[in-house]
Amino acid sequence: MLKDILDNSQNYQPGLSIDCVIFGFHDNQLKVLLIEVENTQKWSLPGGFVPLDQDIDTAAITVLNSRTGVEGIFLRQFAVFGKVMRNHNHFGEEVLKSMEISEEGSKWLTQRFVTIGYYALVDFSKIVLNPTNKSETVKWIDHKEVPELILDHKEILDKALDTLRAELNLMPVGYNLLPEKFTVPEFQKLYETILDKKLDRRNFFRKITNIGILTKLDEKKNNVAHKAPNLYSFDKEKYDEVLKNGLNQGW
Amino acid sequence: MLKDILDNSQNYQPGLSIDCVIFGFHDNQLKVLLIEVENTQKWSLPGGFVPLDQDIDTAAITVLNSRTGVEGIFLRQFAVFGKVMRNHNHFGEEVLKSMEISEEGSKWLTQRFVTIGYYALVDFSKIVLNPTNKSETVKWIDHKEVPELILDHKEILDKALDTLRAELNLMPVGYNLLPEKFTVPEFQKLYETILDKKLDRRNFFRKITNIGILTKLDEKKNNVAHKAPNLYSFDKEKYDEVLKNGLNQGW
Repeated sequence: MLKDILDNSQNYQPGLSIDCVIFGFHDNQLKVLLIEVENTQKWSLPGGFVPLDQDIDTAAITVLNSRTGVEGIFLRQFAVFGKVMRNHNHFGEEVLKSMEISEEGSKWLTQRFVTIGYYALVDFSKIVLNPTNKSETVKWIDHKEVPELILDHKEILDKALDTLRAELNLMPVGYNLLPEKFTVPEFQKLYETILDKKLDRRNFFRKITNIGILTKLDEKKNNVAHKAPNLYSFDKEKYDEVLKNGLNQGW
Repeated sequence: MLKDILDNSQNYQPGLSIDCVIFGFHDNQLKVLLIEVENTQKWSLPGGFVPLDQDIDTAAITVLNSRTGVEGIFLRQFAVFGKVMRNHNHFGEEVLKSMEISEEGSKWLTQRFVTIGYYALVDFSKIVLNPTNKSETVKWIDHKEVPELILDHKEILDKALDTLRAELNLMPVGYNLLPEKFTVPEFQKLYETILDKKLDRRNFFRKITNIGILTKLDEKKNNVAHKAPNLYSFDKEKYDEVLKNGLNQGW
């Protein structure tokens, strides 16, 4: 919790924080994990500080876990945010007093902070939320209905979304987000949800099958009125290979 | 210079540095800009610290300029390096004493540092090297003949090279690196040099012309014995468009 950290600020990297943008996909919805800031109408990304004895990538996992309970997901750095005034006057004098922290802790908290952005894309239905601080509200919020965020968190979120979208051009996305057996239209819906636009059915089919990560199953989707679509599964070996080498081994 | 910074360490973001990986291409060579560390056999990337009154992106430009004289190039963040022990014991007690810095400056310098990596790709023949510190040797060194580097600078360099190579799948590269009029084989050489591998001539021709950024000129390359290759130039408008939207607007 913040007070514990500020009472031991000498154990943390000064002026450096971490913010996590966790995107959750399920059933054609793209949500983002946010925390309500106590006694305000505002929300924030799950963020925190870097213990002196932790690598930054480890600290990102620690921060996310302690704020939300989320564990076992792979976080990737995507950008550093370091405008001079980004946290200037963020904590007013009143707030600092009400937190009952030492002068040292207060000085530590109000110094200039540079923050490292980490992101991940997960299936939100499989994630257990369990914040350490029980008075904090942690929630999946539709990425199109994000309320006002503190500091430059909207900018951080937007940049993470840009990165996620660019990622579709670099590597396959979908494993762990789709059911074990899925149709190409279901796969297309995932891409459409992330990109927030309609895609051409034939183009998508051609491109996605060209990648060579899909195994066509000898089964059709049930419960479909007519022209039942084929079911596919991921060829995990091929998937991992493309993940490693990138989509465009092409040059 | 380092001593000036350490005498005024309160004006700098604590525990945060910047390192720049500047790749230089010219005449089918890919080099990297390095600085010789005084009185050692080792080299380092041009790096430095973040003034409290500068955004990190501005500080990167300041750092690069003061160490090498390089100006007017576009630097991009590519990763943050923050292992706990990355600069542990980097400056021995002897070295610290010989620098004649205050105890405060010495404490500041030996704290844990997290570093932000920035990179760029330029035509090295167009760059003027002019370091502020005249006793420092700044040099373009072939990327395959990089000598021993300090700290984790080899890791930073490798990661930047990975990023540069991945970039070829994301956006066109070549403007400002090739002459105004060039042949497709010359363009292919640029890609081969960056990727450090031979590419198939026909595949490359098909892919590069498909992007739609080349204008075929009504001229042939002179001084070629037989079958003079066509000359091309960049369609700058189209080039900028693809740069903005990415190579794979495809989904």
